[in-house]
Amino acid sequence: MKKVKIALLGLGNVGRGVYNILIKNKEEIMKRSGYEIEVSKILVRSLDKYRGVEVSNDILTTNFDDIINDDSIKIVVEVMGGIEPAKEYILRAIEKNKHIVTANKMLLATEGKEVFEKADEKKVMFQYEASVAGGIPIINSINENLTANKINELYGIVNGTTNYILSKMELEGLEFDDVLEEAKEKGYAEADPTSDIEGYDAQYKLAILSALSFGTKISVDDVYREGITKIKPIDMKYASDFNMSIKLLAIAKENNGELELRVHPTMIPETHPLANVYDSFNAIFINGNAVGDLMFYGKGAGDMPTGSAVVSDIISILRKNIDTKNENPVVKDNLWNKNVKSIDDVESRYYIRLTVQDKPGVLGQITTIFGSNRVSLKSVIQKGRKHDDTLEVTLVLITHKTKEALINDSIDKLHDLRSIKSVENIIRIEDFS
Amino acid sequence: MKKVKIALLGLGNVGRGVYNILIKNKEEIMKRSGYEIEVSKILVRSLDKYRGVEVSNDILTTNFDDIINDDSIKIVVEVMGGIEPAKEYILRAIEKNKHIVTANKMLLATEGKEVFEKADEKKVMFQYEASVAGGIPIINSINENLTANKINELYGIVNGTTNYILSKMELEGLEFDDVLEEAKEKGYAEADPTSDIEGYDAQYKLAILSALSFGTKISVDDVYREGITKIKPIDMKYASDFNMSIKLLAIAKENNGELELRVHPTMIPETHPLANVYDSFNAIFINGNAVGDLMFYGKGAGDMPTGSAVVSDIISILRKNIDTKNENPVVKDNLWNKNVKSIDDVESRYYIRLTVQDKPGVLGQITTIFGSNRVSLKSVIQKGRKHDDTLEVTLVLITHKTKEALINDSIDKLHDLRSIKSVENIIRIEDFS
Repeated sequence: MKKVKIALLGLGNVGRGVYNILIKNKEEIMKRSGYEIEVSKILVRSLDKYRGVEVSNDILTTNFDDIINDDSIKIVVEVMGGIEPAKEYILRAIEKNKHIVTANKMLLATEGKEVFEKADEKKVMFQYEASVAGGIPIINSINENLTANKINELYGIVNGTTNYILSKMELEGLEFDDVLEEAKEKGYAEADPTSDIEGYDAQYKLAILSALSFGTKISVDDVYREGITKIKPIDMKYASDFNMSIKLLAIAKENNGELELRVHPTMIPETHPLANVYDSFNAIFINGNAVGDLMFYGKGAGDMPTGSAVVSDIISILRKNIDTKNENPVVKDNLWNKNVKSIDDVESRYYIRLTVQDKPGVLGQITTIFGSNRVSLKSVIQKGRKHDDTLEVTLVLITHKTKEALINDSIDKLHDLRSIKSVENIIRIEDFS
Repeated sequence: MKKVKIALLGLGNVGRGVYNILIKNKEEIMKRSGYEIEVSKILVRSLDKYRGVEVSNDILTTNFDDIINDDSIKIVVEVMGGIEPAKEYILRAIEKNKHIVTANKMLLATEGKEVFEKADEKKVMFQYEASVAGGIPIINSINENLTANKINELYGIVNGTTNYILSKMELEGLEFDDVLEEAKEKGYAEADPTSDIEGYDAQYKLAILSALSFGTKISVDDVYREGITKIKPIDMKYASDFNMSIKLLAIAKENNGELELRVHPTMIPETHPLANVYDSFNAIFINGNAVGDLMFYGKGAGDMPTGSAVVSDIISILRKNIDTKNENPVVKDNLWNKNVKSIDDVESRYYIRLTVQDKPGVLGQITTIFGSNRVSLKSVIQKGRKHDDTLEVTLVLITHKTKEALINDSIDKLHDLRSIKSVENIIRIEDFS
């Protein structure tokens, strides 16, 4: 049996998963890769921190030079996360002709260009399946198995924390804040949950997925982003009345060479496969012009699922000849130049929940405003009085398909009406048609 | 732009899909593969048959020698199906160092050993994603992206025709025969639907998927098989009462190195993701010891979805160096020797529907028989009389988990009871626990 040495950068959650899988599934990995893998160095921040994994102190180091200067290390596995020093370490490792496996979505979404090009230049292998949706093999599927297609659309539930929160709100009628607290206690949400609940995590992931799907450069800022903090139990209730679910969707579409990229809470028909993705599961729904509709479903985070993707990537490298140059392009987002539409030009249907004064003529004022913007209303629902003493009621509007700019203009005008107490929420509706 | 010549064997449904995708997505395919692909020969049975695709007569041939003797053809794409002459042609093409893409499940499930070994020996590339579940990238995912895992279980809805029929029966309360007729008219079922409705098609596919998942040789005969022809609307109705759906599942499990492989109608909880796979869609649900639960969902048949897998496989070959030897093993089912359990030793829960005489003591006789075989009953449901004049009733039993052999022995003994008019149906229940 051939032997190969690898190094891990980081021994956090994912690093531990990788290390444990390499031990637990040693026989499978040997037979499938043709190699006995030795983790010969692990870069950590401190040598004495408890790590929840049995690692000999001899292989721990706080000095990256111990790794970069060891020519016997053929693969560097970056599982530390963040942009720096991960980026510097990866670039230096590539320079030394080491192959790279990374799980770093933030780095690839923001500075991917530089590391991909460096890998191409030095002809090392560069694998990054774990950077999006953990154990779900979505990146390799797009890069390798759907290449016969022009991808038309991609819809992803790519953040487990927000899907867990929305599932709880939907199924148990709970308030956002209460579920978030519970999720923190259970370790499903981080102490500072901003990146998840405000959609930044999904924004990074969509930037990577859409760059690969459409073969074009995508900046994170090209992706419109909205989080889930405004979703209330009453919105869940209305969604259910309309046979819809609310999910934080990462949406990418191409129409005539123009892209539309956005992350926001979305009402979707409850019969759609994505509507049945609950708890912390992730799913990516893709439509290709040959393959039609496809969906990938699984755990998008966690030490073992993410570790599964990392270790499979290591095996993939070992199955090729690690001592020869990689002639396949690593850069896959430079095939076309495609424009990204402004969110103002995106078309959608909208759910709009208002609190209005319960008096004659209000509905007329509202419909006049939408009508003057050529926004056509599909339904208007008013249910009873909010409080008998406030004389306020909840009004829910569902629009036909229209441009975002026209909705925004209409909402601005609604704010000027004295009879409108509050525009409580606006949620886009996706019909997948 | 580099150019490459390929040949198609067959211009049926899948062949037309491949040809059309190569034209329709020419630009995508060129940019992603680095090659301009020319289909320089297509082997057909007759030159003058209408084929529903615009192909120049110059490239059609009825003589395989025109292809095998043309050294400029680098890839042979076998989309004719069946065992012979497909097998002979593939072996001869490999002998001539041509790379192979095939969609042929029957060949791979029954004679895969010989063609895989030949490909290994000659070091040609051999791709077969399209042989199972059409456009769903399940084979490459198992072979390339889940390699860090020990696969514990695999459950597949891998036959679109039967899933279409069962969906219609479930959602519209129709009889099997009526839906089958309609499916034939719509082209969803073949004139002779035996291979689909009796589970042979799923049996082939499970043989391939389990050989790859467990890294061991599987003979088609190792896979227990039962079709869906016995399913009645009343079974659908009872399933629904128990919050279950009935699907034709292809099931593969490993326990302590022993495999269990079976294709049969299965009652599954309606909350399970597989229960929501309707119409002609396919889905494969996998549990790996690192990745956890994963599901792949999409179109398992049809010219374009299957063509998507074939053309992506062609691109995958072109991205490697087509002029050097392939050092990666093509054979992936020879890593372990694993035994396959007899169906008699498989454990499951069972739904048993009986027609019995409506008289005192019958239930006692039945429970005594099951009790003597240590089969424990979870519930017994009797609903009204079938016909007032026959004095017969339907009795439905749900067992706890037990061995198949004990169920079969109990059923044999039931047949001896005069009060049992008929054992109408027995359906295994899968709880995924």
